[in-house]
Amino acid sequence: MSTHSTKTMTESRQRLQDLRSELDRQHLDGFLVPRSDEHNGEYIAPYAERLHWLTSFDGSAGTAIVLPGRAAVFVDGRYTLQAADQVDTSLFEIRHITDEPPSEWLREHLLDGMRLGFDPKLHTERSLERVREICRNKGATLKAAETNAIDQVWLNQPPVPFAPLEVHGLDFAGETSLDKRVRLASQLTKKGVAGAVLTAPDSIAWLLNVRGQDVPNTPISLSYAILKDSSDLDLFINPQKIGDEVRAHLGNGVTVRSESELPAALTEYAKKKVLADPDSASVWIFELLSRNKTEIARQTDPCQLPKACKNDVELDGTRAAHRRDGASLTEFLCWFAQNATDGNLDELTAASKLRSFRDNNENFRGLSFDTISGCGPNGAVVHYRVNEKTNRVIDFGSLYLVDSGAQYLDGTTDVTRTIAVGTPTAEMRDRFTRVLKGHIAVAMLRFPEGTTGSQLDILARLPLWQVGLDYDHGTGHGVGSYLGVHEGPQRISKIGNTVALMPGMIVSNEPGYYKSGEFGIRIENLVTVMPTELPDGGEKPLLKFETLTRAPIDRKLIDTSMMNRDELKWLNSYHQTVQDDLIDIVDPQTANWLKDVTSPLTN
Amino acid sequence: MSTHSTKTMTESRQRLQDLRSELDRQHLDGFLVPRSDEHNGEYIAPYAERLHWLTSFDGSAGTAIVLPGRAAVFVDGRYTLQAADQVDTSLFEIRHITDEPPSEWLREHLLDGMRLGFDPKLHTERSLERVREICRNKGATLKAAETNAIDQVWLNQPPVPFAPLEVHGLDFAGETSLDKRVRLASQLTKKGVAGAVLTAPDSIAWLLNVRGQDVPNTPISLSYAILKDSSDLDLFINPQKIGDEVRAHLGNGVTVRSESELPAALTEYAKKKVLADPDSASVWIFELLSRNKTEIARQTDPCQLPKACKNDVELDGTRAAHRRDGASLTEFLCWFAQNATDGNLDELTAASKLRSFRDNNENFRGLSFDTISGCGPNGAVVHYRVNEKTNRVIDFGSLYLVDSGAQYLDGTTDVTRTIAVGTPTAEMRDRFTRVLKGHIAVAMLRFPEGTTGSQLDILARLPLWQVGLDYDHGTGHGVGSYLGVHEGPQRISKIGNTVALMPGMIVSNEPGYYKSGEFGIRIENLVTVMPTELPDGGEKPLLKFETLTRAPIDRKLIDTSMMNRDELKWLNSYHQTVQDDLIDIVDPQTANWLKDVTSPLTN
Repeated sequence: MSTHSTKTMTESRQRLQDLRSELDRQHLDGFLVPRSDEHNGEYIAPYAERLHWLTSFDGSAGTAIVLPGRAAVFVDGRYTLQAADQVDTSLFEIRHITDEPPSEWLREHLLDGMRLGFDPKLHTERSLERVREICRNKGATLKAAETNAIDQVWLNQPPVPFAPLEVHGLDFAGETSLDKRVRLASQLTKKGVAGAVLTAPDSIAWLLNVRGQDVPNTPISLSYAILKDSSDLDLFINPQKIGDEVRAHLGNGVTVRSESELPAALTEYAKKKVLADPDSASVWIFELLSRNKTEIARQTDPCQLPKACKNDVELDGTRAAHRRDGASLTEFLCWFAQNATDGNLDELTAASKLRSFRDNNENFRGLSFDTISGCGPNGAVVHYRVNEKTNRVIDFGSLYLVDSGAQYLDGTTDVTRTIAVGTPTAEMRDRFTRVLKGHIAVAMLRFPEGTTGSQLDILARLPLWQVGLDYDHGTGHGVGSYLGVHEGPQRISKIGNTVALMPGMIVSNEPGYYKSGEFGIRIENLVTVMPTELPDGGEKPLLKFETLTRAPIDRKLIDTSMMNRDELKWLNSYHQTVQDDLIDIVDPQTANWLKDVTSPLTN
Repeated sequence: MSTHSTKTMTESRQRLQDLRSELDRQHLDGFLVPRSDEHNGEYIAPYAERLHWLTSFDGSAGTAIVLPGRAAVFVDGRYTLQAADQVDTSLFEIRHITDEPPSEWLREHLLDGMRLGFDPKLHTERSLERVREICRNKGATLKAAETNAIDQVWLNQPPVPFAPLEVHGLDFAGETSLDKRVRLASQLTKKGVAGAVLTAPDSIAWLLNVRGQDVPNTPISLSYAILKDSSDLDLFINPQKIGDEVRAHLGNGVTVRSESELPAALTEYAKKKVLADPDSASVWIFELLSRNKTEIARQTDPCQLPKACKNDVELDGTRAAHRRDGASLTEFLCWFAQNATDGNLDELTAASKLRSFRDNNENFRGLSFDTISGCGPNGAVVHYRVNEKTNRVIDFGSLYLVDSGAQYLDGTTDVTRTIAVGTPTAEMRDRFTRVLKGHIAVAMLRFPEGTTGSQLDILARLPLWQVGLDYDHGTGHGVGSYLGVHEGPQRISKIGNTVALMPGMIVSNEPGYYKSGEFGIRIENLVTVMPTELPDGGEKPLLKFETLTRAPIDRKLIDTSMMNRDELKWLNSYHQTVQDDLIDIVDPQTANWLKDVTSPLTN
């Protein structure tokens, strides 16, 4: 509590009071305040930071519930300390979202007859399931609010963004929007689906070959669309966002309509079959469809899989982007090697220096996420974001972990390197080498068509398991093509996933190890799935990974005596490729350094 | 069609006609006929073979749907040929259950206003989900029938079995029924659950320390139970099954009631919270609960996990059972080595000889499943069951696959060995050695607590993947303690599973390879999960597998040049254990042979 200024505390109390008054006006007793926007996005615009406005908690995930006389904020393990620090705990209890979930809290505090409100645009059916059940059991009513109560009382709420759309040219997209729409429309026709409601802005961006600037880090534009079985499309968007070039690019098949027309447009599908994705579309969409007596096909967003499987133009683009991005990162790593041991460098300066190397790259459009620049114990915080308060000087003898990425018109990057500052301990080298062995096991793997990322996940962990260690995050996430740095449907994770890895999918390969309070290690490259030749007698078509990322892996941290011949061969071959691809595009000083740090290792 | 006798065809036609007349009487237009009983069991009693009675199809899985003027049988890939052979296709279409599912067939043929009947005791909510949706979309009604229409027209339907219960003594069970009930009741109390409806007979058998004889292969007794939060239990069972000894064993806490009293008993829980498992309990149970305005907790059967985690007495029992069972199998393998190359031995004779070795074992109570005894191409049929028609002479130069197991009072066994008859080809040795390497990778693994079987599955497949091969079944299933040879909740499978492997769980380790039309290979041992020591610096408690099965692995099929040092070490150590444990309990001739076939290998 000591860290709250009196001003913030008074402000929080006032906001909560204003919200409760508004709930009274709406005849509601309580309200759900998730951290999400109308499009279920990872990055949200300032106007949608309702949880932050109400509670002062600014983490990337969480939810609040307000009831008469009490309220709570629910966050995951990453954020319990941060929430305790930011939130006025005289107003909100802080609860661990999985250990003490909202449903349990509601079970304790909901009373018979209460009316609990929610904004139907901010929840999926699944996210409400448990709450709905509790309300039923407690005799309470879960009520979709006509207007979000916070929007009614939030003075100076930022406007919904209306940045202009941009055309994503065919030389980057590789397939015209019309071809994509015809391809998907024929699938809709086969299923007897008259229209597919698209609510995910990255799906719409991919399908129309456009990009936007509405949220940080991901070039999307907040909008809805209905793809028809004719291949025509209705785009529901603020018309201010559409300039002449975009209008011409969209062509005759695309009708631009205002967002407020979506409910009316859906009534055109009464008694027809309409697809909507229950994992991303909000309760609001499903309520509109039900109201119209539409036959609802609850199926995966039809753009998701084709968007994930990059075409050859996109793959060539991402390879080029990774070379430029790798050159910048390598220049930074060379600079870091020369400057980090002084004892003057700190995490913020390093992150800012890294950005400066990327800034002038061809096709550079910004970072794909906030850089993780963590030294020593900060490197062990998996979702660390450096700020003035946590900023550490980079100590001699520590490990420095830098996880960063950028958006280029031709591809999205995401790479992590861990660097020894000075001489690493034997423990650091042992742990790093185990992480590297896991990384290589995934990178070298050949696997039959139909294999999911869940099946592979263990390979990245086995060398750590041998000594009773592990890491508490997934091994890989999907990555877009000048789109989300996190995208589905594929992933490499111990959490079950039924989506097979398919050619053209891009996924990260990022095992790690984190010794709490001491150091963090992660080695992350992006890879793409490729077909590979089948040995004689083979029966199942085989796939492999092609590593896209280009940057040296710190040899000071590798204990080659722990590596087998195949692993060393992979490492040397990878380093040779890094050298070949970057040597002519990095500055001369870096070129010299690069030759040295990528020369072959033996054991 | 040529294989049907005129008698059978006439009979099938008559039965279908009788069923349709009965449906008319019940004002139904159609009926669902799954192959299942009221307890969702793998093995069902003859009275429940309704699908077989109606269609002549006798596979272990399938379903039929009868509509006016048309009907279909749905089977999986294992059974499409067999169904075409057994079913009168002028009466029933044969459809592949996943490629052409019942829902699609109904979508084509259901008409507006039709009434489709089903027996609510034979379906889970999930198994009806798709059908329910189709009915809604087509304007048809899905109607729970008061009585199963087939039971009304099946002349000479066998009676529901009423074999006597037997006490499963504490020296086998290791924990009294009262202790188990008190343990589970305290969990129910914590969850505010007043009673748990148990519908799985193996759960009831485990909880009450009783066994039955109602179905083949699994020592269960068909019954229902309600475990109360007081630890008392109501057992709904044919009272004829309860003799004096069992009555005394059950004690005062258990009330024996007739099965017909279950609906009335559930009304005692109106407005209370009752647990029922949606994966095993039928729609009938949930409808009874809903009718009473009971608060339903849809949760996993509370017996499932504690039943899976065997206690020390059960583990010692299973180890002893595996020694006896291994001795019998080894005697068979020795006999087979001496007799198989004559060209006179066939699959049926071999299976029957194997059974004769087990028959007189201490505590032997029968086979745990029908023996798979397959030679050459028959070995490549994963779910092969030998019969007079398919029976093959065991050829010189072929592979013989034998998958068998037994029920002992102290444990359930399941083991597969693949034997070269004469000299195997280089391809057979290569494939066998890859399967063995996969088997050993699982057997040797150490893994942190919390790991699921889904995570491990790939390890058994990797050596095959290298050359573009795989096998189309799971790697391991749970096994009971003188109970089901297939039990949950754990398994080793690429299909996602969220249940962690826990100490005392028994699971099979059975990778294979099947070359269609030529040969089949499988190496199956049962293993149990055990804690193991944590290396210095380790953070996550580690588990390992202890192999339970005792029988030599055919060295003629092992190419030691493909194995690394750790793999050979495991194999030699395993063979030494097999020799040590069996040498004194097999016949002298087998003892000599065993010494030879378990001596150390080198490469």
